[in-house]
Amino acid sequence: MIKASVLGATGYAGAELVRLLSTHENVKIVHLTSHSAAGTGLNTLYPGLRAADLPVLETYDRDDVAADSDVVFTSLPHGASGEVIPELFAAGKTVIDLSGDYRYEDAAVYEAWYGKAHRSPELLKESVYGLPELHRGRIGSARLVGNPGCYPTGAILPLAPLVADSLIDAGSIVIDAKSGATGAGRAPSPALHFCEVDENVKAYNVGKHRHTSEIEQELSLLHGRAVALSFTPHLLPVKRGILSTIYCTPSRPLTRDDVFNCLRSFYEGEPFVDVYEEGLPEVKHVNGSNACHIGFALDERVNRLVVVSAIDNLIKGAAGQAVQNMNIIFGLGEKAGLNALPLNL
Amino acid sequence: MIKASVLGATGYAGAELVRLLSTHENVKIVHLTSHSAAGTGLNTLYPGLRAADLPVLETYDRDDVAADSDVVFTSLPHGASGEVIPELFAAGKTVIDLSGDYRYEDAAVYEAWYGKAHRSPELLKESVYGLPELHRGRIGSARLVGNPGCYPTGAILPLAPLVADSLIDAGSIVIDAKSGATGAGRAPSPALHFCEVDENVKAYNVGKHRHTSEIEQELSLLHGRAVALSFTPHLLPVKRGILSTIYCTPSRPLTRDDVFNCLRSFYEGEPFVDVYEEGLPEVKHVNGSNACHIGFALDERVNRLVVVSAIDNLIKGAAGQAVQNMNIIFGLGEKAGLNALPLNL
Amino acid sequence: MIKASVLGATGYAGAELVRLLSTHENVKIVHLTSHSAAGTGLNTLYPGLRAADLPVLETYDRDDVAADSDVVFTSLPHGASGEVIPELFAAGKTVIDLSGDYRYEDAAVYEAWYGKAHRSPELLKESVYGLPELHRGRIGSARLVGNPGCYPTGAILPLAPLVADSLIDAGSIVIDAKSGATGAGRAPSPALHFCEVDENVKAYNVGKHRHTSEIEQELSLLHGRAVALSFTPHLLPVKRGILSTIYCTPSRPLTRDDVFNCLRSFYEGEPFVDVYEEGLPEVKHVNGSNACHIGFALDERVNRLVVVSAIDNLIKGAAGQAVQNMNIIFGLGEKAGLNALPLNL
Amino acid sequence: MIKASVLGATGYAGAELVRLLSTHENVKIVHLTSHSAAGTGLNTLYPGLRAADLPVLETYDRDDVAADSDVVFTSLPHGASGEVIPELFAAGKTVIDLSGDYRYEDAAVYEAWYGKAHRSPELLKESVYGLPELHRGRIGSARLVGNPGCYPTGAILPLAPLVADSLIDAGSIVIDAKSGATGAGRAPSPALHFCEVDENVKAYNVGKHRHTSEIEQELSLLHGRAVALSFTPHLLPVKRGILSTIYCTPSRPLTRDDVFNCLRSFYEGEPFVDVYEEGLPEVKHVNGSNACHIGFALDERVNRLVVVSAIDNLIKGAAGQAVQNMNIIFGLGEKAGLNALPLNL
Repeated sequence: MIKASVLGATGYAGAELVRLLSTHENVKIVHLTSHSAAGTGLNTLYPGLRAADLPVLETYDRDDVAADSDVVFTSLPHGASGEVIPELFAAGKTVIDLSGDYRYEDAAVYEAWYGKAHRSPELLKESVYGLPELHRGRIGSARLVGNPGCYPTGAILPLAPLVADSLIDAGSIVIDAKSGATGAGRAPSPALHFCEVDENVKAYNVGKHRHTSEIEQELSLLHGRAVALSFTPHLLPVKRGILSTIYCTPSRPLTRDDVFNCLRSFYEGEPFVDVYEEGLPEVKHVNGSNACHIGFALDERVNRLVVVSAIDNLIKGAAGQAVQNMNIIFGLGEKAGLNALPLNL
Repeated sequence: MIKASVLGATGYAGAELVRLLSTHENVKIVHLTSHSAAGTGLNTLYPGLRAADLPVLETYDRDDVAADSDVVFTSLPHGASGEVIPELFAAGKTVIDLSGDYRYEDAAVYEAWYGKAHRSPELLKESVYGLPELHRGRIGSARLVGNPGCYPTGAILPLAPLVADSLIDAGSIVIDAKSGATGAGRAPSPALHFCEVDENVKAYNVGKHRHTSEIEQELSLLHGRAVALSFTPHLLPVKRGILSTIYCTPSRPLTRDDVFNCLRSFYEGEPFVDVYEEGLPEVKHVNGSNACHIGFALDERVNRLVVVSAIDNLIKGAAGQAVQNMNIIFGLGEKAGLNALPLNL
Repeated sequence: MIKASVLGATGYAGAELVRLLSTHENVKIVHLTSHSAAGTGLNTLYPGLRAADLPVLETYDRDDVAADSDVVFTSLPHGASGEVIPELFAAGKTVIDLSGDYRYEDAAVYEAWYGKAHRSPELLKESVYGLPELHRGRIGSARLVGNPGCYPTGAILPLAPLVADSLIDAGSIVIDAKSGATGAGRAPSPALHFCEVDENVKAYNVGKHRHTSEIEQELSLLHGRAVALSFTPHLLPVKRGILSTIYCTPSRPLTRDDVFNCLRSFYEGEPFVDVYEEGLPEVKHVNGSNACHIGFALDERVNRLVVVSAIDNLIKGAAGQAVQNMNIIFGLGEKAGLNALPLNL
Repeated sequence: MIKASVLGATGYAGAELVRLLSTHENVKIVHLTSHSAAGTGLNTLYPGLRAADLPVLETYDRDDVAADSDVVFTSLPHGASGEVIPELFAAGKTVIDLSGDYRYEDAAVYEAWYGKAHRSPELLKESVYGLPELHRGRIGSARLVGNPGCYPTGAILPLAPLVADSLIDAGSIVIDAKSGATGAGRAPSPALHFCEVDENVKAYNVGKHRHTSEIEQELSLLHGRAVALSFTPHLLPVKRGILSTIYCTPSRPLTRDDVFNCLRSFYEGEPFVDVYEEGLPEVKHVNGSNACHIGFALDERVNRLVVVSAIDNLIKGAAGQAVQNMNIIFGLGEKAGLNALPLNL
């Protein structure tokens, strides 16, 4: 059994991770930490976890966590992850970080988009961007994974094959992303009050969302040159799911077969990426699962390719991908603990 | 023009009141106050009010408000209303209070259910419970109105005729009420986060909700003896609306005609109460209007009468009823400013 | 491997059953039938099932189904089940029926509430009401199970211990139930259009819902005498979940401990029933799982006990309970295929 | 009083039109027609209209409608409008058509996008595209108005000033539009079942939606040359509202002031268009009103302008705009009957 701890277990991503780990046959949860709720059970906050056998929430104790854990998941705010991880890493632990702190190759990019200095830039050489479909090999031998953001997962997966194969003009990319409200986290705020989100939709952080830089980093690596793109997130009145509608210009005349074959061959054998031969994904198609569904439409009239992807932001966009990374690192089957089919309804 | 001020304009009920008053042909809004947002425009918080011409939010100044206002609406937390109203009342102002502070005949009842001493029990002799369908005459000559709670409005209106005419056993009443989340107010809290309310329903404060005491007070007056009843509120994933499903035992064998005639004759000529001859009301039937819709089913098999009412909690359950009370006090047509039909959709 | 077929796989309950069976380690799905969609894949209608390996939808062929199946789940409209089941039963198959056709001990009750003659009343001697917590032993040796309705599951489980132990006055029961829209099935109708259900709540079939008779049948068996009760269903703007708020009068003075101990001891060891020592269940606590959560409040002021239960209507209220019944009949662990924790969010 | 009839009053747009007309002080509704529901009251289908005094639904009778009406609103499917309008127009009536039949200057465009021959192409010379902000003068003297589609209203209004002033590259336009489900109409279908729309978002008709051609027609007129653009509609789990997120490339370096001044000066004095100096509109800002709110972000990093608009699809996108057109034709104040402020909540 892999002994796993979750730091920051009470947030939405942390609790989802606990839900997934608690039914994972190869995992034993040893520590769950929380600043605000130490001493209580996570199932007090999330009664859906009443049937799970979980340790009580504790204040973080580095020595205990390091002594008892094979793997530590850090589901902390950015900056806070960067404080605790260097010591855990130095102690020989495997760490999968769900914050933005270890997603970048270049600390300067982090600093430009997060507006603060990176506390351990030397660790960026050790960390791997945890998108298995792009970096499976390096993840397998890593001890520090920067688990991708939710929006980047939904955007990079449909675009990677197209950029890698130079099917599209990399300067033409516009990503219009629509997310459920779990993506904004659990902390209450006026903007997340039920009555502000329900029956509404809004764009936010236009041109400024930090996740833009993750998407650009990964596509630039594939393109071989810097990619800059438009990314606009929207908040939807749903709990889970991100639909990414992506507009780009073909770099040469393309047929449906060209696009489908590019996507299909790139993702051949991938356990969680499903490319639609026809039709388009919707967020309900992946609700509750680690799948990423991809479809597209070729609008020849105006020479644009429209690619649509759907993920569950809490699973493939956060906790599920973290489990997938753990599976890779520990040599388990990649679907271990991630077999749940989406709820159709 | 009636010069009106709203204290506590940034809460949900306050903002709804401003919305109604700003298109009321006989009203000019002179002061809007807010602790937290003084100096900004209410339409910054509620961009739906951008088309309204409103004074800037101010810190409450008793002298200014008293000098400039014919009527003051207090949309403050209970207790806070009780602090400001005595002076406004002493200054000769007409006050319509949306808190629980002036709804009771007996300060001891307030103190038992609100858990605190009443600050101005002597004013309870002056205040009138602002449910026009029961107390229109006294409201007309009052200078202090305790505007009813949302749940009590939805519960008292369907029950009043039945209790007044002794058609039901007053000891048998069970009220199962379902409310939209605006009823919980604007202050953010974990329990009101979109992701906690969406796709959920829950009962809360079972047997303990303060509004129980308002309902009992009014029904006891009609019954001539103390009425005690079960009241269970539920939180729904909708913004507006209260559906009250009320169970009671007929005091003698009743036909549908008996019940319908009782309700219809009680509410004959009422501008806002609509009794269904057949079918049942739903909250969407009253969304955005000051109406209270009432229907019923007689379940002879088990000798129970089931009465169902629907109101918009922010309008007939709060701001609209406050405007209705103002109209009565100032001798306007009762529907002035309250003509909006429900949004069907 | 148990070879299972699902007749009527395209309805909401049928599709949910397929979702559960397709990840059940002891089951192989052999036939899926549909009137309307034969020849296509179920995952065309439910793309959430794209990752499942399923047989193509077929027109029902009795001989094929009987030859190839160990167990047949019939997820057909009432009446339609009664047409196909006698032959399957005669052919020696085990049948779990999700319609109302085989839930009754007395055909006359079926006929009174369903308004039609029962086509095979002689089979009612063979069939067992498939609520494992009450009839586990008889289910284990049955070949025909009448899988309970969703509302009855949510109502009977919290009431059974109280009635069995005579803690409450059986004549005082009022059940106010609130259901998600999947309970109404997949057939489109004006009343189920998104715009009619969203931001709304309504009561329907007051005093007339067929499920009333199921609840009364089971409680009468426990009570030893006929129980008649009030049952009012409501339609909520959520997809899944039933919250049942149940009002009743204690038959003698009760403490919280009395009630808790009654419920707890009745359900000791039950894998899917969870009795709350404090607090109340909400539908999100069970979303996506086979659990039934039960809590209660004792309102001594008015001498009423309020019991609240939450289930997922598609799982414990339909497909999950059907799988649970199959597990019992085939001697598997009762949780096989039903281990999923609720989605907290 | 203007005598008005509504053909097709039971659809969502028709019923919304009746709601608006029934409280319009200068209008008397004389006929409401319906194929399917003749003989019943519209308030049976829409109990929110119980407080309105409405004629009973009738089968359409050309002579009655022509004899009694000053203006006829046709809220019929495309094609059906084209059947009845020529005779009403020949009879001297003023007609405001909510279908697509009279929105085009060129019958060939209609035929290409609607896939059928136009039945009265000669009337297209008489009809005016009913977007008052662009065609107020011609509307004022018209007797036949092609009331714009909902998506085109939300897309043309923010783009018109930018195209007219050549601030953007007309070939670069990408419109990502998100609509509430009322936009899909009242006819039940599997795709509009509550359980298919709730907690979901999907793109549909990518590159093929008919409304694309309306947007292109109007922008081409302003541009002086043919404009072709990408338009992708999405279905949201909300009832009302369209948010249009529009991406385009500036034709020269632009500042925020350049963009704001362009939009503001174009819409100076417009009663229903509200340009944000800062911040972005959300659909709840216009819910229940005839307003169109417009905001923008200039993303200089990637040289793109992102413009966002919000309308209520049933009001400014359909019924409200039809009333606005009637007001113009009959010389009333343009806001008559359209004064309602948005519901903030």
